[in-house]
Amino acid sequence: MAVGQTAFPEMHPIKGVRLGTSNAGIKQTQRDDILILEMAEGGCCAAVFTQNAFCAAPVQVAKTHLSQEPRWLLVNSGNANAGTGKQGLQDALACCFSLANEVNGMAQQVLPFSTGVIGEPLPVTKLITALPSAVSNLDERHWDKAASAIMTTDTFAKGVSVVVNIDGHPVTITGISKGAGMIQPNMATMLAFIATDARLDQALLQQCLAAAAHRSFNCITVDGDTSTNDACVLLASGCAAAPQILPGSEHYSIFAAALLKVCKRLAELIVRDGEGATKLIRILVEQAKDSGEALLVAKTIAHSPLVKTAFFASDPNWGRILAAVGRAGLEKLALDKVDIYLGTVCIVENGSRAAAYTEQDGQRVMKQEEITVTVRLGRGEVREEVLTCDFSYDYVRINAEYRT
Amino acid sequence: MAVGQTAFPEMHPIKGVRLGTSNAGIKQTQRDDILILEMAEGGCCAAVFTQNAFCAAPVQVAKTHLSQEPRWLLVNSGNANAGTGKQGLQDALACCFSLANEVNGMAQQVLPFSTGVIGEPLPVTKLITALPSAVSNLDERHWDKAASAIMTTDTFAKGVSVVVNIDGHPVTITGISKGAGMIQPNMATMLAFIATDARLDQALLQQCLAAAAHRSFNCITVDGDTSTNDACVLLASGCAAAPQILPGSEHYSIFAAALLKVCKRLAELIVRDGEGATKLIRILVEQAKDSGEALLVAKTIAHSPLVKTAFFASDPNWGRILAAVGRAGLEKLALDKVDIYLGTVCIVENGSRAAAYTEQDGQRVMKQEEITVTVRLGRGEVREEVLTCDFSYDYVRINAEYRT
Repeated sequence: MAVGQTAFPEMHPIKGVRLGTSNAGIKQTQRDDILILEMAEGGCCAAVFTQNAFCAAPVQVAKTHLSQEPRWLLVNSGNANAGTGKQGLQDALACCFSLANEVNGMAQQVLPFSTGVIGEPLPVTKLITALPSAVSNLDERHWDKAASAIMTTDTFAKGVSVVVNIDGHPVTITGISKGAGMIQPNMATMLAFIATDARLDQALLQQCLAAAAHRSFNCITVDGDTSTNDACVLLASGCAAAPQILPGSEHYSIFAAALLKVCKRLAELIVRDGEGATKLIRILVEQAKDSGEALLVAKTIAHSPLVKTAFFASDPNWGRILAAVGRAGLEKLALDKVDIYLGTVCIVENGSRAAAYTEQDGQRVMKQEEITVTVRLGRGEVREEVLTCDFSYDYVRINAEYRT
Repeated sequence: MAVGQTAFPEMHPIKGVRLGTSNAGIKQTQRDDILILEMAEGGCCAAVFTQNAFCAAPVQVAKTHLSQEPRWLLVNSGNANAGTGKQGLQDALACCFSLANEVNGMAQQVLPFSTGVIGEPLPVTKLITALPSAVSNLDERHWDKAASAIMTTDTFAKGVSVVVNIDGHPVTITGISKGAGMIQPNMATMLAFIATDARLDQALLQQCLAAAAHRSFNCITVDGDTSTNDACVLLASGCAAAPQILPGSEHYSIFAAALLKVCKRLAELIVRDGEGATKLIRILVEQAKDSGEALLVAKTIAHSPLVKTAFFASDPNWGRILAAVGRAGLEKLALDKVDIYLGTVCIVENGSRAAAYTEQDGQRVMKQEEITVTVRLGRGEVREEVLTCDFSYDYVRINAEYRT
């Protein structure tokens, strides 16, 4: 029940990055649930991870391995290997060792990622048994299979691919993501794997990814629950003919803008596939003093179950939006300067119902599948945007039935 | 669909406090929707209000009138008079003037309260027309009618009444509350009106009420949305034969404990009537460094839609509780010191699944109608408790259909 057109796009291969999948039967028996990404020697890797204190075993291992010039990502869906204590860490490391053995690499060059049910032991034997098959089908063209292999409650595979021109040479960025529930990424995301053939040093790559993630994955929410397993990885193979991208250069601006576009699209696809979602809600907060308060107001609206059920019902119950703005906790908020728009319809003017507002106008906007809410705070000039979805019967059904 | 036994109890009248109700046809035509509480001369009044910046017009007026030795409370259900700007303030004041005229008092001695739909103009004429009838039936015995008159989406009337002995004399505290949705009181509550015949000065009464509200109404949540109209009022008529209660005295301890008991029961009744609730969830956080972090962890669990849908499904999906603890944002949380219990069953020990835990044990607890979750943080000795309910299809239905 995804919102809008979500056909899988054409995915430009990244020279120097190959993908292989296989079926380990972890939870799925119908489709592949193991993904390996391999980067040629000489590339570099950046990553951002969940801020949840209970970060999963694979996240703990991946954080440690990140500084060891990783060349392989090993991902499984169906089991999160989270809340599994010391055994979980041993299991994640065992998978790294097995893959390293299979590809003649070193275990610390493998970053492990897991997504699925929390608190159950990782079926290591099943996983390891499926590795040779995934290694044997490593191929630059397998982005579509990769996007499917990492799905859990997702209803469609998520991908995006862009090509930009740097100094007369094409540079490509291609990425996939997964996620539909337990979505309120915090300085990280659900799982997203992005690769480029651009050449940058690791420090610059990390800076570029952190900035893009902050304005994309960190600005979406489905249910306000930050996952234990969120991670976003960017591989740069450096195989493009374009020159190395240097800090502060025009090339960097071009590359950073393209990466942000890729991250924003991957993040938006997660919200479009939000559990039970029937609508995509874009919340713009304008005229804020700073980014922090703009995001606070936007997220308070985006997390309100009352606002989300009103969107589900196509009910222009704007009092709930107003109440959410009011409880966001802004110091000295001047109510009589607050304006709120549903689409282009002004519903609140100077803190109370707009004189020209009619229920019919509100209803017309609320019936649309994609809705923009704009809140003007009258306190400054900063603007932030958060994406969310509505809250339907199906959200309850999906999460009540998740483990059955 | 309330959780547990919720029969309306015997309500001991408070000497010096009379209640009158009538039907103004604001939204309901079947039952009374106006309530007047009148206190005899010589008593005093304390109140706590919502911290929502968009506090409703009646809340703004009531805050101003609180210092004017109020003797009358005027409550309507069906319309919140919130988000109504200057007109809303005029409307609230007009109601105060009309009641004052009817009872030969002054407008500033009337505290107005409204609850219902946000953003629609208060039907002042209807309300004023219904006042004489409510005044004419003022009676000390009408607590039951009063509890019904203030209901909105509530499925049952909420009341509690206790008698304590102070210096050989009975002192009574009797109160009512309402609320089922938009419930995350913040230094206040939904509407609750409590009266006592005890004799205290206003400053002490206010201190006693604030303390009790902090540990009762401020420790419940249904959906994390703080209302624009929350208020809790305590009237002390001073008509009991017991001596005046002085600060720091043993009498004060007895009275404060009884008031806390009344507030806790009124708050619990709101959660039992939580919109769509099928279960009452008691979240105990123990071994915290301070009250703030204990409440933060408890409320993060209590607000998680994933935790709440798992309770609805009777699914012991404890990974969701663990993830909520992890994202609460505690500095330097030592995961390997965290234990979690479902009822008396240990599910998480030292940060990962307890060795002796079985799914059957978890399932047995989850099927109960009232469930206690205990989280031990291993960081200190402070303990806090938050009450919440589960998240069902009916929550979505009730809030999707609210205005239709």
